[in-house]
Amino acid sequence: MKVIDLNCDMGESFGAYTMGRDSEVLRYVTSANIACGFHAGDPATMRKTVRLALEHGVAIGAHPGLQDLTGFGRREMDISPQEAYDIVVYQIGALWGVVRAEGAKLQHVKAHGALYNMAAKQAGLAEAIAEAVYRVDPELILFGLAGSELISAGKKVGLRTASEVFSDRTYQSDGSLTSRRQPDALITDDRTSVSQVIRMISEGKVLSQQGIDVPIQADTVCIHGDGIHAVEFAAKIRSSLTEAGITVQAAGATFS
Amino acid sequence: MKVIDLNCDMGESFGAYTMGRDSEVLRYVTSANIACGFHAGDPATMRKTVRLALEHGVAIGAHPGLQDLTGFGRREMDISPQEAYDIVVYQIGALWGVVRAEGAKLQHVKAHGALYNMAAKQAGLAEAIAEAVYRVDPELILFGLAGSELISAGKKVGLRTASEVFSDRTYQSDGSLTSRRQPDALITDDRTSVSQVIRMISEGKVLSQQGIDVPIQADTVCIHGDGIHAVEFAAKIRSSLTEAGITVQAAGATFS
Amino acid sequence: MKVIDLNCDMGESFGAYTMGRDSEVLRYVTSANIACGFHAGDPATMRKTVRLALEHGVAIGAHPGLQDLTGFGRREMDISPQEAYDIVVYQIGALWGVVRAEGAKLQHVKAHGALYNMAAKQAGLAEAIAEAVYRVDPELILFGLAGSELISAGKKVGLRTASEVFSDRTYQSDGSLTSRRQPDALITDDRTSVSQVIRMISEGKVLSQQGIDVPIQADTVCIHGDGIHAVEFAAKIRSSLTEAGITVQAAGATFS
Amino acid sequence: MKVIDLNCDMGESFGAYTMGRDSEVLRYVTSANIACGFHAGDPATMRKTVRLALEHGVAIGAHPGLQDLTGFGRREMDISPQEAYDIVVYQIGALWGVVRAEGAKLQHVKAHGALYNMAAKQAGLAEAIAEAVYRVDPELILFGLAGSELISAGKKVGLRTASEVFSDRTYQSDGSLTSRRQPDALITDDRTSVSQVIRMISEGKVLSQQGIDVPIQADTVCIHGDGIHAVEFAAKIRSSLTEAGITVQAAGATFS
Repeated sequence: MKVIDLNCDMGESFGAYTMGRDSEVLRYVTSANIACGFHAGDPATMRKTVRLALEHGVAIGAHPGLQDLTGFGRREMDISPQEAYDIVVYQIGALWGVVRAEGAKLQHVKAHGALYNMAAKQAGLAEAIAEAVYRVDPELILFGLAGSELISAGKKVGLRTASEVFSDRTYQSDGSLTSRRQPDALITDDRTSVSQVIRMISEGKVLSQQGIDVPIQADTVCIHGDGIHAVEFAAKIRSSLTEAGITVQAAGATFS
Repeated sequence: MKVIDLNCDMGESFGAYTMGRDSEVLRYVTSANIACGFHAGDPATMRKTVRLALEHGVAIGAHPGLQDLTGFGRREMDISPQEAYDIVVYQIGALWGVVRAEGAKLQHVKAHGALYNMAAKQAGLAEAIAEAVYRVDPELILFGLAGSELISAGKKVGLRTASEVFSDRTYQSDGSLTSRRQPDALITDDRTSVSQVIRMISEGKVLSQQGIDVPIQADTVCIHGDGIHAVEFAAKIRSSLTEAGITVQAAGATFS
Repeated sequence: MKVIDLNCDMGESFGAYTMGRDSEVLRYVTSANIACGFHAGDPATMRKTVRLALEHGVAIGAHPGLQDLTGFGRREMDISPQEAYDIVVYQIGALWGVVRAEGAKLQHVKAHGALYNMAAKQAGLAEAIAEAVYRVDPELILFGLAGSELISAGKKVGLRTASEVFSDRTYQSDGSLTSRRQPDALITDDRTSVSQVIRMISEGKVLSQQGIDVPIQADTVCIHGDGIHAVEFAAKIRSSLTEAGITVQAAGATFS
Repeated sequence: MKVIDLNCDMGESFGAYTMGRDSEVLRYVTSANIACGFHAGDPATMRKTVRLALEHGVAIGAHPGLQDLTGFGRREMDISPQEAYDIVVYQIGALWGVVRAEGAKLQHVKAHGALYNMAAKQAGLAEAIAEAVYRVDPELILFGLAGSELISAGKKVGLRTASEVFSDRTYQSDGSLTSRRQPDALITDDRTSVSQVIRMISEGKVLSQQGIDVPIQADTVCIHGDGIHAVEFAAKIRSSLTEAGITVQAAGATFS
C-alpha cells in the first residue's frame, strides 16, 4: 500500500498581522508545521493554530526558524551548530507547552526557510538540529528535504525521518531541487505537479531537468498555505492522490 | 520540623550581555528561577543555566516575564488574562524543552517583575497564570507572593503553591510589602533581614511597619543574585537558617 | 476660510506582513502618519511609504509608538516620561533619516495607540513627548487629541499643534471621546460621521452624548486606512468637505 | 604634519545590561561610534552616550549593525544591498534624532561587526551602504577598513572616507587583516601594537606576516572599549602617538 503525508506551514500570523489560509488548508493536509515565534507566530497564534489543527484532526509539528522576524526567517545567517541546537530546542519546547496545554501531543519537527535550507546542505547544522530534536523527545519525527544532510543526520541519531518532496519544484539529476534562480525551477502547471508527486510516491522516481530518472524517497509532500491558488491546489492534490489509490495520512500513523 | 526553600532568579544574561553571579549563588539556594527569553535570557543562556543548576543539585523553575527586553520586564503592561495565559504557556514550554533535553524536570514556575506584581493584585491575571501552569503540567508548583491573588488562584485551580517571603523588604499590617516608594521599604541590615526570615518560618509571623504582628505563610525566600553583596548574603542566610534548626530544601522535596 | 487636514496612519506593514490600503487612501488624505518600527513598520516599509506619500503629494509625519510589536502598540505600558522622551526622539530620527534620504522633509508627529492615549491624559508623558519633538525639530507640528494634555504640552513648549477630531467616535460633555467600552462609542452611519466633522470644522462644536453642544478645536481629522470600508469613507468625507466649502490641505500649509 | 583619529565603539549597553567602559575610554579617543539599537544600544543608552561624548568633546558617529541583538550583530546574514541600505538609513536617522535633540551634529558612520566585515568584501553591500550614508547627509564621513570595498564605494559616491587600521591585528601581504582563525592574527604585545600604528601613520606602511612592507592608508585607529586592558591601552596609544609627534584629532577636524 502506498501512503503519503501532506504537510503545510501554518500559524505564521503575528500579532495584528494575518498570514495564510490555515483553516481552509487544514481540510486537506495531514500534518501542520506550526511556527514557534522566531521567524513568525506568537503565543496567541500558536494556541489558536494548535486548536484549529486539533479540530481538523491534523497532526501537529514544530516549525522552528531563525530569529529574524523582519526577514521571515528566509535570510541565511551564519549560526553555529550550537546556536542551531539551542534555538531548535527552545522552539520545540515552546510549542510543546501550547500543545500540552491543549492535551495533545507533538508529532514532528520541520525547520523553516533558511534554517531548512542550511540544514539540507551543512552536515554540522543538520547534526545539531537532529540532536536537538532527539534530546527533547526521541519519538518526534524529523522532516527534511529528501536526500538532504538533515535526513541523514536524523537517521544517524536514531530519529524516525520523513523525506519531503515538492510538487511545484523541478529536480536535478543529483536529486536536488533546481535553484530558484533558474528559470525552470518552478512547475506552474497543476497536472504536471500532481503527476510528479504521484510518480514519486508510486515509483520512487522523479524525472530530472536533464531527462534522467532519479530515485527519490517521498514520505511527505509540502503544500503551500499562502497565495491565491494555494487552497485550491491542496484540494486538488488530495483528491488526485486518493483517486490514484494512495492513502493520505499523517506521517506518525504510517510509522506506528 | 521547620523547612524552607531558597529561590533565586537567574539565567538573566542575554547574548553578549552578562547579568548575575549565577554559579556562585547556586551554592546556597535550592530553587532556580530561570528566565525564558521574554524579559531576559536566551536559548543558549537557558541551556547553560539549566546545566549549572543541575550540577549544583538545585531544582529548576520557569521564570516567565512580560515581552519587554528593553525594560527587563519591570514595566507593567496592560495585558489581558488571555495574553498572560499565552505568554506563560509559551515560556514554560520553552524552558521545558531545554530541561527535557538535559534529561531533567521542571519543579516550579515563578513569574518575573511586573508580571509577578500584577498577578499578586489582579485576580483575572492570577487565574490566567494559574490556569496556564496547570494546563502545561499540574505537577508544577506555583510560586507567588505570600497572601497574593496568585497564591489563591493557584490553590483554586488545584496546584501546589509556595508562598514567597522577602528578607530585605518590610511589611504592612495587611500583610503586603511596603511600597518601594516609601523610605522604609527596604531592610538593609543583614541581622534584621535574617531575624525577620527566621521568625516568618518559625512562628509564621512578621512585625509590620505599624508595629503589629501579622500572620504570614513562608514556603520560599527570595534571594537576589545580582548586586555586590548578593552572594555574601545568600551564604549568610543559608548558614543562619541551618543554625536555627530550619531545614533548607527545594519546595518540591517538601511537598512530596 | 475654513480649512482642515485629513490624516491617516500608514506604513504599518512589517516584513512579510501587509497591513492597510496605503496607496489607495493616500489619494484622499493630506497628512500621512508613518510608523517607525516600534509598534509596526520596518526600514523597508518606511522607505516605500515615504516614497508613496511623496508621489501623492501628501505631507509626512512620524508615528512613534510603544516598543510592542506583538501588541501593535495598543497595550498601555507603565513607561516613565524619560522613556517616552527617548523612544519618541529615536523614532522621529529614524523616519527623518528615511525622509532625508528621499530629499523630503517631515511635517508632523502623531503618537500611536496606547502612547497617544496615555499622552492625552498624563501631563508628565505629554510634556516629555512635546519636549522630544521640540528638541529634534521645533518646526515640527505636534498632532494630538483635541483638548488633550498633549496639545497643552505642545503649546507650552512652543510647538505648533494640530488638534485631532474623530468622525466615527462620539463625544462626552467634557469634550472627551466616549470610551470604547460604552455601547454608543462608535458612529457607524456615514452621514452622521460626515455631519459631525463638518460641524466641528464650521462651528467649532460637537453635540455630546448628553445632548449638550461642546466647543472643540478641529485642525485635523483621523481617517482609517484599514478595514473593508476605509477607503470608501475616506473618499466620501473628502468630497463632502469640499462640497461644504471647506479647504482640505496639509496642516503645515495652513500654519505657514 | 601627521594626524590620526582614534575611534571606539560605544553605547553598546542595552536596557538593564551594561557593556564597555565608555566614560573612561572617552578620555583618550577622538571619535565615538555609537550603537543605534539594532545589534546593541537602545534609545536611553544612545542619549546618555551622546551626552557623554559631548562632555568629552569627542566627535559622534552612527554605528549601525545587523538586526541581531542576540548575536550582537556579529553573525553574517544574507541581506540584500537594498536591505543594507534601509537598515543603515534607519539607524543613522535614529542617532541623528538623539544628536539633534542635544544640539550637536553627526560626524561619521562606521558599520558594526558582520555588517562591517561584509561591506569590506562585497561591493554590492558596500555601494548600498555608501549610498545610504550619502543620501542621509553627504557631509558625513564614512569609516571603513583600509583598502576595503566600502572605502572604494564611499569615494565613488562622493563621500569623505576615513580608512581604519588596527593596532592589535596583523596584516597579510595583500593588505588584508590576518583571519582570526589563524594563530598569528592578534598582536598581544603593547609595544608592537604601538609601533605598528606609528609606522602606519608616519610611513604609510605595515609589515605583513609574510615579511613584506605593504602600503596602507591610516586615517583612524580602532580602539577597543571593552576588556580588562582596554582603557589602559587607549591611554598608552594616545600618549605614544603624541610623543611621536602625531596630532590626534577627530576625522572631521582633519578633513575640514
